[in-house]
Amino acid sequence: MAEKFYSEKNLRFTLYEVHSVESLISHKRFGEYNRESFDMILDTAKSMAVDFMYPLFAEMDRNPPEYTGSTIKVNPAVRRYMEMSGEGGWINAIFSEDQGGQQMPLSLFNACMFIFASANYSLSVYPGLTSGAAGLIYNYGNEELKEKFAAEMVTGRWQGTMALTEPEAGSSLSDVKTSAEPVQGSGYYLIRGQKTFISAGDHDQAGNIVHLMLARIKGAPAGVKGLSLFVVPRYRYAEAGGMEFNDVNCAGCYHKMGYRGAPIAQLSMGESDDCRGYLLGEQNMGLAYMFRMMNEARINVGLGAAAISSAAYYAALEYTKERLQGRSITEKNPDKPQVAIIGHADIKRMLLQQRAIVEGSLSLIVYAGKLVDLVSISEGQEKEKYEMLLDLLTPIVKSYPSEMGIVSTSQAIQCLGGYGYSSEFPVEQYMRDSRIHPIHEGTTGIQGMDLLGRKVTMNRGAAVQVYVDEIMKSVDKASSPELKPYGVKLENAINLWKKVTGTLAGAAARGNVELFLADATLYLEFSGIICIAWQWLLQGIAAEKKLTQTVSSEERNFLTGKMLTMQYFYEYELAKIVSLAEILEGMSGLTIKMQPEHFDD
Amino acid sequence: MAEKFYSEKNLRFTLYEVHSVESLISHKRFGEYNRESFDMILDTAKSMAVDFMYPLFAEMDRNPPEYTGSTIKVNPAVRRYMEMSGEGGWINAIFSEDQGGQQMPLSLFNACMFIFASANYSLSVYPGLTSGAAGLIYNYGNEELKEKFAAEMVTGRWQGTMALTEPEAGSSLSDVKTSAEPVQGSGYYLIRGQKTFISAGDHDQAGNIVHLMLARIKGAPAGVKGLSLFVVPRYRYAEAGGMEFNDVNCAGCYHKMGYRGAPIAQLSMGESDDCRGYLLGEQNMGLAYMFRMMNEARINVGLGAAAISSAAYYAALEYTKERLQGRSITEKNPDKPQVAIIGHADIKRMLLQQRAIVEGSLSLIVYAGKLVDLVSISEGQEKEKYEMLLDLLTPIVKSYPSEMGIVSTSQAIQCLGGYGYSSEFPVEQYMRDSRIHPIHEGTTGIQGMDLLGRKVTMNRGAAVQVYVDEIMKSVDKASSPELKPYGVKLENAINLWKKVTGTLAGAAARGNVELFLADATLYLEFSGIICIAWQWLLQGIAAEKKLTQTVSSEERNFLTGKMLTMQYFYEYELAKIVSLAEILEGMSGLTIKMQPEHFDD
Repeated sequence: MAEKFYSEKNLRFTLYEVHSVESLISHKRFGEYNRESFDMILDTAKSMAVDFMYPLFAEMDRNPPEYTGSTIKVNPAVRRYMEMSGEGGWINAIFSEDQGGQQMPLSLFNACMFIFASANYSLSVYPGLTSGAAGLIYNYGNEELKEKFAAEMVTGRWQGTMALTEPEAGSSLSDVKTSAEPVQGSGYYLIRGQKTFISAGDHDQAGNIVHLMLARIKGAPAGVKGLSLFVVPRYRYAEAGGMEFNDVNCAGCYHKMGYRGAPIAQLSMGESDDCRGYLLGEQNMGLAYMFRMMNEARINVGLGAAAISSAAYYAALEYTKERLQGRSITEKNPDKPQVAIIGHADIKRMLLQQRAIVEGSLSLIVYAGKLVDLVSISEGQEKEKYEMLLDLLTPIVKSYPSEMGIVSTSQAIQCLGGYGYSSEFPVEQYMRDSRIHPIHEGTTGIQGMDLLGRKVTMNRGAAVQVYVDEIMKSVDKASSPELKPYGVKLENAINLWKKVTGTLAGAAARGNVELFLADATLYLEFSGIICIAWQWLLQGIAAEKKLTQTVSSEERNFLTGKMLTMQYFYEYELAKIVSLAEILEGMSGLTIKMQPEHFDD
Repeated sequence: MAEKFYSEKNLRFTLYEVHSVESLISHKRFGEYNRESFDMILDTAKSMAVDFMYPLFAEMDRNPPEYTGSTIKVNPAVRRYMEMSGEGGWINAIFSEDQGGQQMPLSLFNACMFIFASANYSLSVYPGLTSGAAGLIYNYGNEELKEKFAAEMVTGRWQGTMALTEPEAGSSLSDVKTSAEPVQGSGYYLIRGQKTFISAGDHDQAGNIVHLMLARIKGAPAGVKGLSLFVVPRYRYAEAGGMEFNDVNCAGCYHKMGYRGAPIAQLSMGESDDCRGYLLGEQNMGLAYMFRMMNEARINVGLGAAAISSAAYYAALEYTKERLQGRSITEKNPDKPQVAIIGHADIKRMLLQQRAIVEGSLSLIVYAGKLVDLVSISEGQEKEKYEMLLDLLTPIVKSYPSEMGIVSTSQAIQCLGGYGYSSEFPVEQYMRDSRIHPIHEGTTGIQGMDLLGRKVTMNRGAAVQVYVDEIMKSVDKASSPELKPYGVKLENAINLWKKVTGTLAGAAARGNVELFLADATLYLEFSGIICIAWQWLLQGIAAEKKLTQTVSSEERNFLTGKMLTMQYFYEYELAKIVSLAEILEGMSGLTIKMQPEHFDD
């Protein structure tokens, strides 16, 4: 199939025109790169996506992982793809050179991840997880762990995972019960416990599975303060040489609505009391280490969601250009030929919504990646500023694309009508695949509490001030007659956001924390829309600038479409904040008042 | 499994306390019924749903229909269920006595259909389709068609279908190409053509499949004015006695995202030039006949959507009561036991939204059914009034539950977190099943155009006036201190609705029909929210009345929950109309301005 699942033109526009990621190469960390190499990397990613990944997209859904009783059988192409990812340097791309990595800017790397995820989200997560786990080892592990585990993982021959969740500890990580008992003088701990919902937690297409696992050392404090991070491989190095089974037992895998190409495993450690874990870094620092990776992991979720929405959008766009149905609303003559449905206003509205979600989300994702890059190359106050922005925005980067991905992929189905509901077309799979994102890596509810309860209030609101300042800089840039009205709208929106935030903070100041956080999920939605409106203004500014240059008619169409999509966002999506502000400022406390027994009938 | 998929208490509350459907029995058409028989009928429906239908719910999804090359293999239980439906009098329940029916009020019958659809939507459609098709024959067919076809269909041994859609004629029925050629003196026409997306259009668990099929008689006008309705059976009566194949060929069936228990067929008629169709009623009246059934067919879709949302809601409710995770927001001690997640405000918000959608939709559905009943027993101006209300509300009855069903079932998944995404729990199937409803029986886009372009303007806005009068009657009834604020909100909402409607109508008056209808889908959403707010006020009025009586503590919890859910709807859902009004009144014309080439990149 030669279907389109992302736009090369838009990806480059976002990277270069909107966020000037080229500017990063002026710093020595990224000095080995240039515009040419950036483009080559994007081309390489495209080839892998088109030639290898997309052809497996439907097949991996139709033949999902199967639990064999001891391991999980996945599509054999996974092995080849993991190795390709290792050989191509995709697993260690963002690691620093002293970690054997390539010091690629995350903003560029994430653009490639976007390509991969839009081609085949399930397949893209295998090396992605490995990279995250290996990164933790390189950042916090000792030399032995780096050599014995991380070095194997970056080749793509070994799978890495993040093993946090337990049957009784999902959103509540403070309840993690997996235990680690030190064995004096051995250099390892005995691990006992259960993990569940572990992505790629076991499968038959990797030589080993290396879990980065949260566990509680015997005697450690209760709650999150007593969690340590361990390297727990399925196969460990035997003392006599070679590898031996490490008593990490795969107890099953979930059958899922979508995202079916990746196995989500249940694990049981220490059934024979012989599961060894190697402490990473210091005791009781597990959650802190995890959380330093969490921003990137959460950006990845938003990225996956936006990428799936992108693929669904292009499938819908292609269909609506070809499908003939109905006539113009003023054409009453049934003898006239039918028109392509992309001519109908309602179809264009649905396409505009999808494009607004996809391109708005992508812009925010690239921006968040750039913030990570800027943190890595700056110091002092500047570094702090970028860190605060990144921390503040991460719940939005994770949640906006995830929640709106359901809407966007659902609109793609609607564009195809009955065909959209049929598995003969890909869009229904996109909607099923998409539905995981508001759940994993912290549900939308958790993100809302993180944004309002932690990020907005941290450093006495310093992050909020930095964020508002950044937005106002963009408002100032939108000075042309065409952009000015949107700048004004954004300024009004951010003022409304400050007002609502203040009202909610008032409840917290009065000590009513429950009321303060009751509608945190809606506050996150409210904040997300305004943040994406900002990203759309940035795109409008870049598009207008290009439109003043001599451009091809093809380019002009793209840029004009960009401007109109920005207008769509402001007129149809940003309008939603009025209602959300009304709800949030109402602070009815209704969800607190409603008692569980009031649901009885 | 003994899971709950609907609330008996709420169903009776809606029927008896909110909409007083008992009052119908004072009319002689329904004089054979009384409250006791109503209750018995509801109990019988419950038994069928619990004992027979729900146990097949997951199984029919996991083993979907299979095309064998000539027919479609479905679950063998379908035959038994069809026969049970015939024997139990469910297929002819609403037909008049002179049609051999039971003259059951549609409001009561639909309450039973709600039970069936919440237990197993796919299974419920087989007899439902048969009933609709047989009803058409009884209403418009001659005695021979009634005896030879309809009488067999109501036994449940033969399947009925509505065969409208063709590959090139989905939303645009004026493009139906299936042809009917009269054969002089024979009493039949030769049918040639293709139909697609025909629900239960072929399967191996019925003795015959009887299609009510739109076709164009040779020489008939183009467009919808040239469509006639035919009875086209898969097997016809042979002249020599017995049955013979009627050249209706099943060409395949769709594999679908959900709603997988029901086969959606492609048909090819007249491949051997031997497909006979029997004209129903008069020539070129096909669409008119179909449309007289359309209100009920569309109510059915809304009903199916609300029923699926109901089942998902009860699955989520049960889970959230049992699942322990996290602690109260002010509890910082990790040694304290975890609490059931229904204690968290965000979970209660998600449950309240589901309940508000389910019970609000159900109330509107029962009301719409009662309107059909009132049309059937009244005359003159009164009848006209009920007809206008029914016509006006039908697009909302169809679309609000369908569109919000996606939101509601998705929230159910979110309540279950990772488990919700797993097929080990039923909610992911509910979301997949639900996704069909904004598509079939006229997409949401088509319903929006119907509401704004046809219903609002019909009889110079007479229906709008009747509707507003009805709402104001409810506002007047909400006079208690507790209800008054909601009455005021509803009055403001309906005034806003009139204002927005007037603004849009202004564009039509100026001849800009394209602009008038450009955002019809959003106008439908806007109208739907206000209509459901009305239904919630009606429920609030009924609940408050009961609360003044001596009630059990169980009943008090239910009624208190009802009042709080009404408040939820007004504070969280009705609030959305402010933003929608802003968009609609903006009339930016953006979706008209955006040209297909602006989507190119």
